[in-house]
Amino acid sequence: SSPASSRYAWFSRNSSDVSEATVAKQIYMVSDGTGWTAEHSVNAALGQFDHCLVDRVCPVNTHLFSGIDDGDKLMEVIKQAAKEGAMIVYTLADPSLADSAKQACSLWGIPSKDVLGPITEAVASHLGVNPSGLPRGAPGRQVPLTEEYFKRIEAVEFTIKQDDGALPQNLHKADIVLAGVSRTGKTPLSIYLAQKGYKVANVPIVMGLGLPKTLFEVDPEKVFGLTINPVVLQTIRRARAKSLGFGVEARSNYSEMDYVREELDFAGKVFAQNPVWPVIEVTGKAIEETAAVVLRLYHDRKQKCSMPRISKRY
Amino acid sequence: SSPASSRYAWFSRNSSDVSEATVAKQIYMVSDGTGWTAEHSVNAALGQFDHCLVDRVCPVNTHLFSGIDDGDKLMEVIKQAAKEGAMIVYTLADPSLADSAKQACSLWGIPSKDVLGPITEAVASHLGVNPSGLPRGAPGRQVPLTEEYFKRIEAVEFTIKQDDGALPQNLHKADIVLAGVSRTGKTPLSIYLAQKGYKVANVPIVMGLGLPKTLFEVDPEKVFGLTINPVVLQTIRRARAKSLGFGVEARSNYSEMDYVREELDFAGKVFAQNPVWPVIEVTGKAIEETAAVVLRLYHDRKQKCSMPRISKRY
Ligand SMILES: Nc1ncnc2c1ncn2[C@@H]1O[C@H](COP(=O)(O)O)[C@@H](O)[C@H]1O
Ligand SMILES: Nc1ncnc2c1ncn2[C@@H]1O[C@H](COP(=O)(O)O)[C@@H](O)[C@H]1O
Ligand SMILES: [Mg+2]
Ligand SMILES: [Mg+2]
Repeated sequence: SSPASSRYAWFSRNSSDVSEATVAKQIYMVSDGTGWTAEHSVNAALGQFDHCLVDRVCPVNTHLFSGIDDGDKLMEVIKQAAKEGAMIVYTLADPSLADSAKQACSLWGIPSKDVLGPITEAVASHLGVNPSGLPRGAPGRQVPLTEEYFKRIEAVEFTIKQDDGALPQNLHKADIVLAGVSRTGKTPLSIYLAQKGYKVANVPIVMGLGLPKTLFEVDPEKVFGLTINPVVLQTIRRARAKSLGFGVEARSNYSEMDYVREELDFAGKVFAQNPVWPVIEVTGKAIEETAAVVLRLYHDRKQKCSMPRISKRY
Repeated sequence: SSPASSRYAWFSRNSSDVSEATVAKQIYMVSDGTGWTAEHSVNAALGQFDHCLVDRVCPVNTHLFSGIDDGDKLMEVIKQAAKEGAMIVYTLADPSLADSAKQACSLWGIPSKDVLGPITEAVASHLGVNPSGLPRGAPGRQVPLTEEYFKRIEAVEFTIKQDDGALPQNLHKADIVLAGVSRTGKTPLSIYLAQKGYKVANVPIVMGLGLPKTLFEVDPEKVFGLTINPVVLQTIRRARAKSLGFGVEARSNYSEMDYVREELDFAGKVFAQNPVWPVIEVTGKAIEETAAVVLRLYHDRKQKCSMPRISKRY
């Protein structure tokens, strides 16, 4: 019953944590849809303030308001933003609603930023087509059950079933195969890629245990090795062992530095014997960053064209 | 070895598909990081052109260039964009690089849009702090192994293990429990929520099979029922049965309209007996839209404050 993430926090207006309430800056993210686009943009922008967000020197609270698809709801949120001294980042497909937001914010001195309008206008003039102005949940709009929709779901279901070396006989069905020692992030990386529509299988490399024969039978161009700095790996494994409630003894074998180094060496040898597999250093990378590297390599190999890119058609 | 998604396509400059190459509009997405932020923004904007994207009346190809973190790479991409008549949507943290992009594009008549700069500036002035100007992969930057990082990974691993009613004895450990008949999207929805840091368990409702006792013992405020229009469900189940290679007989039981309706009625009765569970209609909703609805309800219940919102601190 505790919040899912330590970053999530709930503030009522009569919060007792007054110092926090007065010091932290508030950012409202407002969308007629899910709000994920606004949240993604705000996250990227907040990355530019890591130097002062760390240790909460300049604390920021974000607040996501989804489904704000009429003027009444919008005005209620804007009024609340005024009370809390928040800025508003919004995505509102209906131009008249977006305009109301802009007007009301400027009237009440609320800093605001439209993150959908400018890019939509730029795309409209590039395509030579007018935008619909309809939010994603508009009546009559139907999410089509496209081939892409089914493929993405299939990719997620496939990837879940292959996790952690399960079903090695299915490696040939995967688009991408990840190999690495425990706690190199194979599982979250697999899932991230699966959500983008790739069928992923991951194979753990464990010192003293053999690897599935099929790993060496599949197209080596789709296999990626993951490696990591031993000190960082030890930290991650210690956290892991603790959260799994391992006893001290089991823990030492799994997260002792000698063992960690030896196991990484062992993985390194496997990689050296399979020089076609790219080896990706995950130290210090977020999951989505490693995913970007994997996909860049994956698509470069497929397309063999001058400018590395990932292309999609709409 | 086929591309993961039917939307992905690769065009070489000497493509034989000349009509497509001449008609489709090109959008370049360029980032010093992963490119996911630019991609997310472009996707939202393209939603405004669904009316002409459907059936490829106004075909669009997007091309993602990640890791463009110096002037040379940037100029190479911009030159290529000029050749292909593409527009460029970019996120470049270094203001001088962003400025180069702007200058070069305007010089060469390339439509372009900065989707990071404007929001970063707005946030900077709200916080009263200067942005670092450092891209996410900048040397010396380390992704900290924060509590949030570990919790998110734990949520993904938990969620995978509970999929499809596995380990009903663990339902009490979940933040969110989803219940619904087969093909209401429980698995992809669970995974989507897990990536956001929530531990999710999903429980299939199958006519004639009992439900785990634990489903009725956990906090009912964290349980969500999923429902769907029977005609749409039948379509999805038929696609599913085909892709699984079910024989005609097995298929009929699973995707015949009478059976589909009866099973949905059965689920409806379970939901009626547990009136605290919100029942969410997933028909016509994309996974991320259903996720937004679940999370809005989840947080509203937790915070019991006047303005429904999802809050995070940084
Ligand atoms: N498929 C779509 N069709 C129409 N509008 C969309 C689509 N996807 C996103 N949008 C719009 O883009 C903005 C961001 O969406 P969201 O990420 O759901 O908040 C909102 O104004 C949505 O209405
Ligand atoms: N944690 C972060 N720290 C610094 N910059 C970031 C961070 N996350 C994203 N950015 C920047 O935001 C833009 C979008 O990032 P991306 O989605 O990786 O393409 C890029 O210019 C990144 O350099
Ligand atoms: Mg794993
Ligand atoms: Mg399922």
